[in-house]
Amino acid sequence: MKIAIVGAGAVGLFYGARLARAGADVRFLLRKDFEHVRREGIRVQSHDGDFHLLKVNACRATADIGPCDCVIIALKATANADLAELLPPLLREQTMLVTFQNGLGNEEFLADQFGAERVAGGLCFVCLNRTAPGVVRNFAHGAIAIGEYNRAPRARTRALADAFRTAGIHCEVVENLAEARWRKLVWNIPFNGLAIAAGGVNTAQILADDSLLRLTRGLMGEAIAAANKLGHPIPPDFAEAQIENTRSMGAYQPSSLVDFIEGRPVEVEALWGEPCRRGSAAGVEMPRLETLYLLLKKLTASAH
Amino acid sequence: MKIAIVGAGAVGLFYGARLARAGADVRFLLRKDFEHVRREGIRVQSHDGDFHLLKVNACRATADIGPCDCVIIALKATANADLAELLPPLLREQTMLVTFQNGLGNEEFLADQFGAERVAGGLCFVCLNRTAPGVVRNFAHGAIAIGEYNRAPRARTRALADAFRTAGIHCEVVENLAEARWRKLVWNIPFNGLAIAAGGVNTAQILADDSLLRLTRGLMGEAIAAANKLGHPIPPDFAEAQIENTRSMGAYQPSSLVDFIEGRPVEVEALWGEPCRRGSAAGVEMPRLETLYLLLKKLTASAH
Repeated sequence: MKIAIVGAGAVGLFYGARLARAGADVRFLLRKDFEHVRREGIRVQSHDGDFHLLKVNACRATADIGPCDCVIIALKATANADLAELLPPLLREQTMLVTFQNGLGNEEFLADQFGAERVAGGLCFVCLNRTAPGVVRNFAHGAIAIGEYNRAPRARTRALADAFRTAGIHCEVVENLAEARWRKLVWNIPFNGLAIAAGGVNTAQILADDSLLRLTRGLMGEAIAAANKLGHPIPPDFAEAQIENTRSMGAYQPSSLVDFIEGRPVEVEALWGEPCRRGSAAGVEMPRLETLYLLLKKLTASAH
Repeated sequence: MKIAIVGAGAVGLFYGARLARAGADVRFLLRKDFEHVRREGIRVQSHDGDFHLLKVNACRATADIGPCDCVIIALKATANADLAELLPPLLREQTMLVTFQNGLGNEEFLADQFGAERVAGGLCFVCLNRTAPGVVRNFAHGAIAIGEYNRAPRARTRALADAFRTAGIHCEVVENLAEARWRKLVWNIPFNGLAIAAGGVNTAQILADDSLLRLTRGLMGEAIAAANKLGHPIPPDFAEAQIENTRSMGAYQPSSLVDFIEGRPVEVEALWGEPCRRGSAAGVEMPRLETLYLLLKKLTASAH
């Protein structure tokens, strides 16, 4: 299986390097870090053990990669407009597009542009930061879940999951990708959002602050209510389980906060805007989410 | 009428200097600015015309002021604990305590400590910043409204209003102080709050941003709903009238933002916490206000 990784931030580098280390045919599209990665490779510093992938199959343009079996999209959602130009050289009729991006709206974007048949999605349950060109630090976790866009898993979904498992990544195949996205949003909405809106705080600081913990629970409640209304049953005790699970992350800076601090675009629409619009359209009041969304929109507007 | 001004921030200096200039017997309690004001007086730079009050009756301690007819309290609500020690030397049996502080809970605090009979309140519809020791800038407006705590106006209320009018201040006597406080909160809750939570923006920036204007309307709607439920009828079109009125303020930094920027305490409980608690206790959902309150509590927690 020939796999292209489009987007060489923390997620693309980490999962791509894991697959390549296990012998998969992985091609990385690299732009600003191309020279560096070509020369130095990719370094992963992980709670699971460090490794250095010295020989990286890196290209500067998708035309140099050519048609693939699978394209993993790990760009920021805010750069989706670039995909219209980037992806065509990677596509043949059966090429599968798997978005590893956060939040809602990315499968729809790919389906609109390249056809719904191609589209699948992956969720990364991982604490990662890209700490330097070609260097990724994996603080905790690492599992992924993949599923098809608006349909049950297929042979290709299971084949991709097997490739990840061969690379030592815990990979689940989900029956309902949309539901899995909402489950992940129950975490991302409060933690990624409050990390920025509360003035630059990490997960441990959110959990240690009574006000922010109360707000976390309120936001999780709204997300669960919206998911349920949209036909994705998530039990109410899922919120507390997520909070407990977060304690194991330590003082983790959610990726949106890292983007914000470093002046990169934040995926405001995918993580807060689109969930707010879909919940509201389904008749679920989401005033806490709306407040957070509108504040984040303004707070991140000056980033470039 | 012997009047003490306790709290020499922008509000205390401005209204005290206006009264003193008009010949009222005004005594200022000054602490860190005592020497400066004693030497240089108070300078007011106002859209209504500048003036310099050279001779200021300033004292370092309330014992040096002695019993008064009226004490105007213009400290930050966050310093209310100091009043237990500051006020007793100013009190005789009939002394009236008039809190010019923002938000909810200050009349109750004074009533608990010094007896409900004494307590009245004033609302300042004014754009003021203290720009240096003894120097106040009045950007816009200047009117006040005064009323009694939980009762109709009395002769003393009207007498104080007359003193302000003699000083050229537009002063209304309100029948229902609690309702007037809620009307003012309809402005303060969004504008003072978003100025901080949206990353340090002034009123013009809030009005110019679609997200923040939408949030302003949402917060105003919750405040009006809570006020109505608490027996204070405020018509729904009051919100738009407030927004229109704000356009005349230009690029005004609400006082809470100035406090925040300068590292001073912000009146989070009086402006957001107490309105949220009272609305919720009356059965009104205030999720936008709650979200803003909890964020502000965290954002301002590091100020001293």
